[in-house]
Amino acid sequence: MKNVHIVVVGGVASGPAAVAEARRTAPEAKITLFERGPDISYSACEMPFLMAGQISRMERLIRFTPEAFADKYTADVRTHQEVEFIDAASRKIRYRNLKTQEVSSMAYDRLIMATGARANMPSTLASSTKDIYVLRSLDDVRMIERVILRSSIRHAVVIGSGYVGLDAAWALKARGLRVTLLSPSGILSPTLPSAMGQIVKEHLQSAQIVVRAERASSVEKAGDGRIIAILTDKGEKIGCDFVLVAAGTAPVADLGAQAGLKVGVNGGILVDDQMRTSVQGIWACGDCTERKELIFDATIRAPLSLNAFRSGRVAGRNAARSGRGRPATIAPLVHAAALGLGTLEIAHTGWNLEQATSLGKNVVSATIQSRTASAMASNSPVHITLVAERDSRRLVGGQIVGGAGSAQRVNVLTTLIRAKGTVEDLYNVDFVYAPSLAPAHDPLFVAARTLQKSL
Amino acid sequence: MKNVHIVVVGGVASGPAAVAEARRTAPEAKITLFERGPDISYSACEMPFLMAGQISRMERLIRFTPEAFADKYTADVRTHQEVEFIDAASRKIRYRNLKTQEVSSMAYDRLIMATGARANMPSTLASSTKDIYVLRSLDDVRMIERVILRSSIRHAVVIGSGYVGLDAAWALKARGLRVTLLSPSGILSPTLPSAMGQIVKEHLQSAQIVVRAERASSVEKAGDGRIIAILTDKGEKIGCDFVLVAAGTAPVADLGAQAGLKVGVNGGILVDDQMRTSVQGIWACGDCTERKELIFDATIRAPLSLNAFRSGRVAGRNAARSGRGRPATIAPLVHAAALGLGTLEIAHTGWNLEQATSLGKNVVSATIQSRTASAMASNSPVHITLVAERDSRRLVGGQIVGGAGSAQRVNVLTTLIRAKGTVEDLYNVDFVYAPSLAPAHDPLFVAARTLQKSL
Repeated sequence: MKNVHIVVVGGVASGPAAVAEARRTAPEAKITLFERGPDISYSACEMPFLMAGQISRMERLIRFTPEAFADKYTADVRTHQEVEFIDAASRKIRYRNLKTQEVSSMAYDRLIMATGARANMPSTLASSTKDIYVLRSLDDVRMIERVILRSSIRHAVVIGSGYVGLDAAWALKARGLRVTLLSPSGILSPTLPSAMGQIVKEHLQSAQIVVRAERASSVEKAGDGRIIAILTDKGEKIGCDFVLVAAGTAPVADLGAQAGLKVGVNGGILVDDQMRTSVQGIWACGDCTERKELIFDATIRAPLSLNAFRSGRVAGRNAARSGRGRPATIAPLVHAAALGLGTLEIAHTGWNLEQATSLGKNVVSATIQSRTASAMASNSPVHITLVAERDSRRLVGGQIVGGAGSAQRVNVLTTLIRAKGTVEDLYNVDFVYAPSLAPAHDPLFVAARTLQKSL
Repeated sequence: MKNVHIVVVGGVASGPAAVAEARRTAPEAKITLFERGPDISYSACEMPFLMAGQISRMERLIRFTPEAFADKYTADVRTHQEVEFIDAASRKIRYRNLKTQEVSSMAYDRLIMATGARANMPSTLASSTKDIYVLRSLDDVRMIERVILRSSIRHAVVIGSGYVGLDAAWALKARGLRVTLLSPSGILSPTLPSAMGQIVKEHLQSAQIVVRAERASSVEKAGDGRIIAILTDKGEKIGCDFVLVAAGTAPVADLGAQAGLKVGVNGGILVDDQMRTSVQGIWACGDCTERKELIFDATIRAPLSLNAFRSGRVAGRNAARSGRGRPATIAPLVHAAALGLGTLEIAHTGWNLEQATSLGKNVVSATIQSRTASAMASNSPVHITLVAERDSRRLVGGQIVGGAGSAQRVNVLTTLIRAKGTVEDLYNVDFVYAPSLAPAHDPLFVAARTLQKSL
């Protein structure tokens, strides 16, 4: 594998994982990492800690500086350089130095796409994006920090109530700002059943975050260009001086699509279980991809840290391997995610009732309310919804909102789903019981029993 | 099923569960429940809360009084009555009223043994048992309360450092007593690897519980009969005024053995997956039984609350069924247990390295130390040992000691073990990540990766 040249496009999470694994696989390979921004190898999921003022130094989020990474993995790390064109036939890329605007080209032997995802911007706000912030990159946080520190922000409006929106709203509130969250279709909808969304809403309200069921229709600005209000679809005007949009993300797949890579129904670069794209010599990993999930064999995106790491490892290994032995493979996905908001834990795995039904599946769900521990001990409520296929009785998803231990319980469900387990398998789990840690009948056991009765 | 008479022997946990399920199965059956003590249907696992003074009323531990239970399940509940003899051939029992010493006999059609387990008493202390306390029944706690309240106890010695010993020592310390724990072979040995036992030991010590690696050899008493010291095998004399023995339990199987029920290698009544004993017309459930476990097909005891409930349900159902349809079955066991000691969580599942090796299995283990959450958030150490079969790569056990979420993580391992999953299956779990709830690489994921390298 001497002299093989591996080019990796994108340096946040899966790109660096791919480089590291490629280096382990092919000690002699030449590896080049392109990143359009100034930073590589950082923890995007922890940026809210910075916004909340809970950590003060941005450097804590950075695992490797470009220099340290280049040194550790003997890679040519090129920040502020954007790959603009891929010629897959001749295996060449064209890239631009974003500081000098100089355009150059480079040959590759194997290419790994790790271009990530970008924040969605509602069309109604698209014309005002200059003054509206998103939370995708470390550079976004730098800008947010600058505006918060500079202009004595008092009232922030967060648009979107998915995991990122809630996380950001909570962080801004912790920072001491007044926070209004716009949630036109319900908190964490459609991920959580609406009754669970309501519980989260009450938790946000108890933390003095104002939640409004309105959609932002436009932004009002002062003469000096500063935002002074959000106008909503209900004709309301919400005075504010800071707007953060968290309206979901979309895979950055245009560069790949231009190179002929097949793109899936969710807009991501389609990859197989070796993280191969549809074009020979090109792999892809992380947030820019979509691939098979385990439960219904559907194609989904999983823009999550662990998937970025794991898929990056597989892409890096396979791009760097000499062709001897078996290629590395990745297991089909189960989509699972969690969020902590103070004492409340929110988590889900697999499909919810609505999603599974819309896929044409005959599914049943059951919801229970229980407690995280024995009534004798400190405990809090926990709400669980389980979803199972009616005929096979296979568990296909679960949503949990509650106190300590709720998120870890979702990992139990994910493990069971991966094993294609049924509701009976969940009932049969030998759940541990210790009064201060879990009630005699674990909430998951109670949920399994309840769902058994509905099946 | 009219006029069928079901007799249940033992009323703490699995007995009442059996009665309840038998009643649901056969609304017309006659059901009699015998209990030698004064109480039925209580939560033995929560008795330490009472000892710790964290709850004040014993009634909180009681789910049903005998009267309320009799009323709810239309059962003849006989407390203070001990079954002394079973004539399985003629389906008759002989029992004694422990208050009047009157002996009577009664015919049954189906019999369910739920006689539980008794506390082991080291032979060196057997002659002094009158003044030594154990923690098995509500009546034990009544006696302990009486002596603590009456005689201004100052220094308690707890003999034994398994789950119950630790739980009791922690509770007595919380009550304000000076506490010494005798742990001759190491804390939670052999359940936990000794390095993990050491972590628990340091935690106990940080709570001012004195831990001594000595064995109690005898008790020294004052002229008035009160305990004044424990003498140890190292010739030491530990002045104390209260002794609690927590040296494990043994199934109460003598009554069953006398009736011809087969008893297993662990001394428990052998039952199959329908909770049938070796004798027609007799079922058994709960702490007095032993049965197949899932991993190596060994026969084990699982004196645990959830097993009592589940096995009681199955025994009750099958004893009460008319013979139509399929009998209820119970899944093979995976032994899993947990304990919370303040901020420290201890849990294990399946087999440890030593146990599996002694069963002749070729197993490998790996131990990691990680954190319960991201370094940015509040987090604590967590130590995980995983054990897997070398050839099949199947996970066969795990032990965890650490901060919040450690015990719930053991449920993930149990779920995987039940599904006969491999270390790769554990690596593949889509663990949730939220900085305040779990690090980007969950400790279980880290442990799986480490064990992969050892296999």
